[in-house]
Amino acid sequence: MLSEKVVNNLKKASFIRTMFEEGEKLRQKYGPENVFDFSLGNPDPEPPVDVKKALLRLIEEDRPGLHGYMPNAGYADVRQKVAEALSVEHGVKLGYENVIMTAGAGGALNVVFKSILNPGEEVIVLSPYFVEYLFYIDNHGGKSVIVPVNRDTFEPDPELIESRITPATKALLINSPNNPTGVVYSEKVLMELADVIKKKEKEYGTTIFVVSDEPYRKLVYDGVKVPSILKIFENSIVVDSYSKSLSLPGERIGYIAVSPSARDAALLADALIFSNRTLGFVNAPSLFQRVIGETAYLSVDPAIYKERRDLLYNKLTELGFSCIKPSGAFYLFPRSPLEDDVEFVRAAMKYNLILVPGSGFGCPGYFRIAYCKDVKVIENSFAAFEALAREFIG
Amino acid sequence: MLSEKVVNNLKKASFIRTMFEEGEKLRQKYGPENVFDFSLGNPDPEPPVDVKKALLRLIEEDRPGLHGYMPNAGYADVRQKVAEALSVEHGVKLGYENVIMTAGAGGALNVVFKSILNPGEEVIVLSPYFVEYLFYIDNHGGKSVIVPVNRDTFEPDPELIESRITPATKALLINSPNNPTGVVYSEKVLMELADVIKKKEKEYGTTIFVVSDEPYRKLVYDGVKVPSILKIFENSIVVDSYSKSLSLPGERIGYIAVSPSARDAALLADALIFSNRTLGFVNAPSLFQRVIGETAYLSVDPAIYKERRDLLYNKLTELGFSCIKPSGAFYLFPRSPLEDDVEFVRAAMKYNLILVPGSGFGCPGYFRIAYCKDVKVIENSFAAFEALAREFIG
Repeated sequence: MLSEKVVNNLKKASFIRTMFEEGEKLRQKYGPENVFDFSLGNPDPEPPVDVKKALLRLIEEDRPGLHGYMPNAGYADVRQKVAEALSVEHGVKLGYENVIMTAGAGGALNVVFKSILNPGEEVIVLSPYFVEYLFYIDNHGGKSVIVPVNRDTFEPDPELIESRITPATKALLINSPNNPTGVVYSEKVLMELADVIKKKEKEYGTTIFVVSDEPYRKLVYDGVKVPSILKIFENSIVVDSYSKSLSLPGERIGYIAVSPSARDAALLADALIFSNRTLGFVNAPSLFQRVIGETAYLSVDPAIYKERRDLLYNKLTELGFSCIKPSGAFYLFPRSPLEDDVEFVRAAMKYNLILVPGSGFGCPGYFRIAYCKDVKVIENSFAAFEALAREFIG
Repeated sequence: MLSEKVVNNLKKASFIRTMFEEGEKLRQKYGPENVFDFSLGNPDPEPPVDVKKALLRLIEEDRPGLHGYMPNAGYADVRQKVAEALSVEHGVKLGYENVIMTAGAGGALNVVFKSILNPGEEVIVLSPYFVEYLFYIDNHGGKSVIVPVNRDTFEPDPELIESRITPATKALLINSPNNPTGVVYSEKVLMELADVIKKKEKEYGTTIFVVSDEPYRKLVYDGVKVPSILKIFENSIVVDSYSKSLSLPGERIGYIAVSPSARDAALLADALIFSNRTLGFVNAPSLFQRVIGETAYLSVDPAIYKERRDLLYNKLTELGFSCIKPSGAFYLFPRSPLEDDVEFVRAAMKYNLILVPGSGFGCPGYFRIAYCKDVKVIENSFAAFEALAREFIG
């Protein structure tokens, strides 16, 4: 009676959401203060105070049409502001015509895939991956080709990727700082990837877009700099949201930036604007476009997250967990002490500890901790991690 | 290099947007006060003052997580408020579980079609139609089957619709008050349609959803009442936005309401929530969900639009234009004095009058006037309409 595909997918619901709902049950049973829920990447710091100020000023000044339609690509002056902020951050000159305002990065990725994919064309996705990617690609007739990252560094493996590029490869999807590993891809590896892609584009006479999902770009620590995808890859499309950088995930505000050097960049922008309209997004929410016009250069303080990473990383490694120390985002992705990560995560629930199995990211044998939780919650969770370590590491 | 389908569709861009852009050129040349742009359905009354009050209160009270994630279906208490308002308006008892908050009606329709359509299944669309419908259906592998309405009344023709229902028919899409005609479908015709659908469901052993797009439901005049689709059709899905009723089109806030009597209503709701998530909407914008929680029962004053309808309708008929007097929305859809409506609309531009040809709605031989314009603009446009009438009606 309904879409068979959707009904089938319902059965394999997202592990992240499932774990969040399991946590909800535990919270009701034991009280929220006794449950350590590291399942959902829902940033807890409030947005920078300038966001609130901008909101109040915009609403109080009664600007006519504040909540009205604007061109499908967004307000030209807001696109210009975002382009200016990006030009500084990337060291690449962007104009408003290279920027399209979107309903977050999730909306942006759907708009991109609708605009570039023909039926059966392939998108290379690196595992572990954010599970929604596979749905986004499938929505628009594409085929996900899963390629694991290097398990020692969680960085892409250019040689392995090269071997999986075919004449049907339309895009490589990357995400750095990465969800779920927190790892920031190095300039060295990205440059190697750029060489691989150029070589393959030439060999097959195709265009391979590098689609870079960057919502965590401003959340980096230890002085690490996120290399500019727009600089490194010719046919690049950056997809971003203010969900994490400004703690506005519910508001669905983000953008697509097309590299000015991309082949047919103007036609690509037109296609993206058309897809943004006809997928039913119509335009990015108007009030928050205006807010972004005034706050695009801001970010919550990454030090908030760094403190938590250090706390958790130090504790976990002290307890004998094996974990790469990541330089960005708000995730840790330790190895599961049990081969069966789902079983391990179930066991952790005995201690009111809510984790997400690596299987939910196409990467069994690991688990994810989303540490967008108050330092107190993290400290209170230590006893539970200790008990877990006693049971499984010894 | 890009999606061939998207690139081909770019060439046949929306007439509405095209005319709006032509108007922009004229505004730059002659000054905005000298151009009478009736192209875009962008409501000009500001939202009710309670919307502004709710916004300011919500922002000032610093509620934690005001801009954060919530369940993909929306805040449960907001869904409950919307369900209560709908229960009163429709005379059908709805619970929060029957309501899913969406990014406007455009987003909602995409979510619905993704959830119900299998490849090649058919959706009956009544012409004249809002052109985006065809894209929305195509996005999810569906096939639009265009059936004209009765040209004397602009109401659906149950017999003609019956003849076009096949075993592959998954939905009938209706829109009342209608864009572009402004006509409100009568209870009598809808009841006849319900009989037709029941009969065909039985004959083919299928489920045929009635998907009702109702953003203009609160904008009706002359004491007309919009019949409740949820009451009349068993397998009904109402799709609505606050774009017109609260003048918030840019904010992308609306909902889907599933009839509690629909077959497998709970599974359908789950499928809709899944599609809302995986199409990249994730959730309806959070701040405006909260606003709707407090203002769902409100509306801009329909009298504002009634005054304009009367002014324009009286003037046009006085000038000899042939036009049905509609009871809702903010559109008039008169017959084009020239057989070629595109040529007529081009000619109107000589008088700085921006109209949209019926061809843009799959209905050549007519033109649309969107009268969401100040009374002064309407009055100032009369001389242009007079000149147009002199040229083409005589």
